[in-house]
Amino acid sequence: MEIAFLLFDGITPLDAIGPFEVLGKLPGARVKMVGKTKGEVRTKGQSLAMIADHALAEVPKPDILLVPGGPGADALAEDSAVTGWVAKAHETTTWTTSVCTGALILGGAGVLQGLKATTHWRVMKDLAAFGAIPTDRRVVFEGKVVTAAGVSSGIDMALTLAAEIAGEDVAKAIQLGIEYAPEPPFDAGHIGNATDERIEMVRSGLNRP
Amino acid sequence: MEIAFLLFDGITPLDAIGPFEVLGKLPGARVKMVGKTKGEVRTKGQSLAMIADHALAEVPKPDILLVPGGPGADALAEDSAVTGWVAKAHETTTWTTSVCTGALILGGAGVLQGLKATTHWRVMKDLAAFGAIPTDRRVVFEGKVVTAAGVSSGIDMALTLAAEIAGEDVAKAIQLGIEYAPEPPFDAGHIGNATDERIEMVRSGLNRP
Repeated sequence: MEIAFLLFDGITPLDAIGPFEVLGKLPGARVKMVGKTKGEVRTKGQSLAMIADHALAEVPKPDILLVPGGPGADALAEDSAVTGWVAKAHETTTWTTSVCTGALILGGAGVLQGLKATTHWRVMKDLAAFGAIPTDRRVVFEGKVVTAAGVSSGIDMALTLAAEIAGEDVAKAIQLGIEYAPEPPFDAGHIGNATDERIEMVRSGLNRP
Repeated sequence: MEIAFLLFDGITPLDAIGPFEVLGKLPGARVKMVGKTKGEVRTKGQSLAMIADHALAEVPKPDILLVPGGPGADALAEDSAVTGWVAKAHETTTWTTSVCTGALILGGAGVLQGLKATTHWRVMKDLAAFGAIPTDRRVVFEGKVVTAAGVSSGIDMALTLAAEIAGEDVAKAIQLGIEYAPEPPFDAGHIGNATDERIEMVRSGLNRP
């Protein structure tokens, strides 16, 4: 089972690494980190680099495709080299998935046309431009297309998908392995109970590492 | 505020990347990825590489030190080049932290002597060998030493620490930014309600990506 993670400059690494820790542990998983070109990608603030071991053309038919988001995702949604690869890969995937603003890239590839989909709350409305039905849920399954909300939601999506693929026993073992029994210190993760000040801080006031 | 993340071969990347997404967004955060030597580190299964931009000697006095865990952590706990650096850095840090089996490295550096500490359930008892008091909690604060349980617990630890450093408003904005309103599909993340079969699967039966 080949699992392709798309890496790019301006990635939000948790979007990819949460699902990596889950899906990568599935029986028979072979993970491939794929970039537009081979080599280093960096977060927007430059402080974290990961390596894309494979160029797009080297991984044409992954079984599972995971597209993460981040500040760099908007540009990739309009980059035909990337969206063309996603669209072509999607023809033969078993599962096509996104986390956070990775949904914009799926949208740019035409994958979300007519489907309910979720993404980071900051760009939720933008999904409609791709023919998708913006859906404020943490994880949305539509046939083989699975979208997750912002950043940390990829862990919940991946565990749900792991159960679909390998059964609940395996998914629960993976959850135990990553000790995912979350205890958020605040009830502040959802836009539904956020203050205007806090929303503005997220939009423009936080450091970019 | 300089924040050093220790990277190494055999790292569990979520241990570092969860806190990266939180602590890196603090006002004035300057994140440095530090390795025993500069350059590429890989997960045990080789499928993910990250880059240590700095060697240990280049980052002698971080304000915050974060030591992640992973299959490679056991060896580093006995590697005096690494434990010596941790011990020396700890003399001047504001916060010294670990996630998962990164606690073994803090232990090897003598940092946990006489302190309550937590780690991944798989090695909880091993903390006693370092003079620590194994404590089955998700996050343990002991003065400036903060330890977190397995893998995903680093997110909870980092949000709690972010509130200590920059106040609750900032921590809540970061939590909103990473949309951390977890919805685990199963109640299976804690050892307290795990079956023997599931524990055995974690110990030896899961793929290593």
